[in-house]
Amino acid sequence: MKKTNIPSVTINRLSIYHRCLEKILEREKGNRLKIIPSFEIAEMTGINSAQIRKDLAYFGEFGKRGLGYPLVDLNRELKKILGLDKEWSIIIAGAGNLGKALVKYKGFQKRGFIIKGIFDNNRSKIGKKLGHIFIYDIKEIEKFILTEKIGIGILAVPADSAQKVADKMVAGGVKAVLNFAPVHIVLPPEIRIHNVDLSIEFEGLTYYLNL
Amino acid sequence: MKKTNIPSVTINRLSIYHRCLEKILEREKGNRLKIIPSFEIAEMTGINSAQIRKDLAYFGEFGKRGLGYPLVDLNRELKKILGLDKEWSIIIAGAGNLGKALVKYKGFQKRGFIIKGIFDNNRSKIGKKLGHIFIYDIKEIEKFILTEKIGIGILAVPADSAQKVADKMVAGGVKAVLNFAPVHIVLPPEIRIHNVDLSIEFEGLTYYLNL
Repeated sequence: MKKTNIPSVTINRLSIYHRCLEKILEREKGNRLKIIPSFEIAEMTGINSAQIRKDLAYFGEFGKRGLGYPLVDLNRELKKILGLDKEWSIIIAGAGNLGKALVKYKGFQKRGFIIKGIFDNNRSKIGKKLGHIFIYDIKEIEKFILTEKIGIGILAVPADSAQKVADKMVAGGVKAVLNFAPVHIVLPPEIRIHNVDLSIEFEGLTYYLNL
Repeated sequence: MKKTNIPSVTINRLSIYHRCLEKILEREKGNRLKIIPSFEIAEMTGINSAQIRKDLAYFGEFGKRGLGYPLVDLNRELKKILGLDKEWSIIIAGAGNLGKALVKYKGFQKRGFIIKGIFDNNRSKIGKKLGHIFIYDIKEIEKFILTEKIGIGILAVPADSAQKVADKMVAGGVKAVLNFAPVHIVLPPEIRIHNVDLSIEFEGLTYYLNL
């Protein structure tokens, strides 16, 4: 099947499987020979085994029925499918507290997301550096994306300028936007947008405090 | 069934259903009469209808078989079950960029998470305010949690002090920790810990750039 025809819910589930395998890998300390039965992935993710097999079958043969999946191989394949086996050039719009925190965040680089620049409209910030990353004038963002072939932009600007900045990112050529601004952004349908809601992280916790 | 016996994977899925319903509510502009067929929740979440019915059945009768679930009522019930129908007092450890960004983040208050204080060990920050929130000496954190009956602590400190600060939070009496520090924290089994990995937000995006 052509990769473009795969349902987006399947892609979302592949991300979930990948996270699950990363957790198991950490637990198993990278044991290259470990076979994971699909019921274990099912239990950890809450997605049933038949669905897991069906999702993975889009991408070929993984593992053996009745036995399970080879942990390391499946994880490597999922990384490849999800595009996590390579480096991605990203930029951040907004050199406020969140932008600064994201620049310092070690997790991005570890996973191959390389921050190429940070953009702001504040004259006192432009031309300075955050760590080893330059702060550029927000006016330069479109040209920078174009010349540096940036695929992903992070929106860390205030809500009232988020749409305008996102439009500039798209004009420059980003294919995906990660939006931290607490506002709904409208972009052309071919551009992927993912809205981050940090308050969602609390949801699993409050249930247990509520018992 | 006693709420304590409900599997944690079910709770995780309830969070997923709740997020899905919030999205539908936004789309339906709060239409109080809207009935959501379970296949629609299934399609949006990737969890099959039988599993959804089984999960919800732990908590009583929702909706009518063959018809679906009343959107507003089910969402209100899920909020109640998940403990999202009330206010929670929280504190933040770490007044660095991330701590500052979290204090300013509107989403927490909107969902009923009230920040009561922020804690740091930097003398130049202690005694000042971030917005209307006081920055206290990190040495006060245990006593503050105890006297103010804080249930949830956010760790936004550097990785090398995260464990020490988490221990103090637990000594003070928090029941749950939301950990933004990129390090594995060990806490007593009765304390809930949720590790936030911001780089995971990219996963769904890179697949589409990879086509």
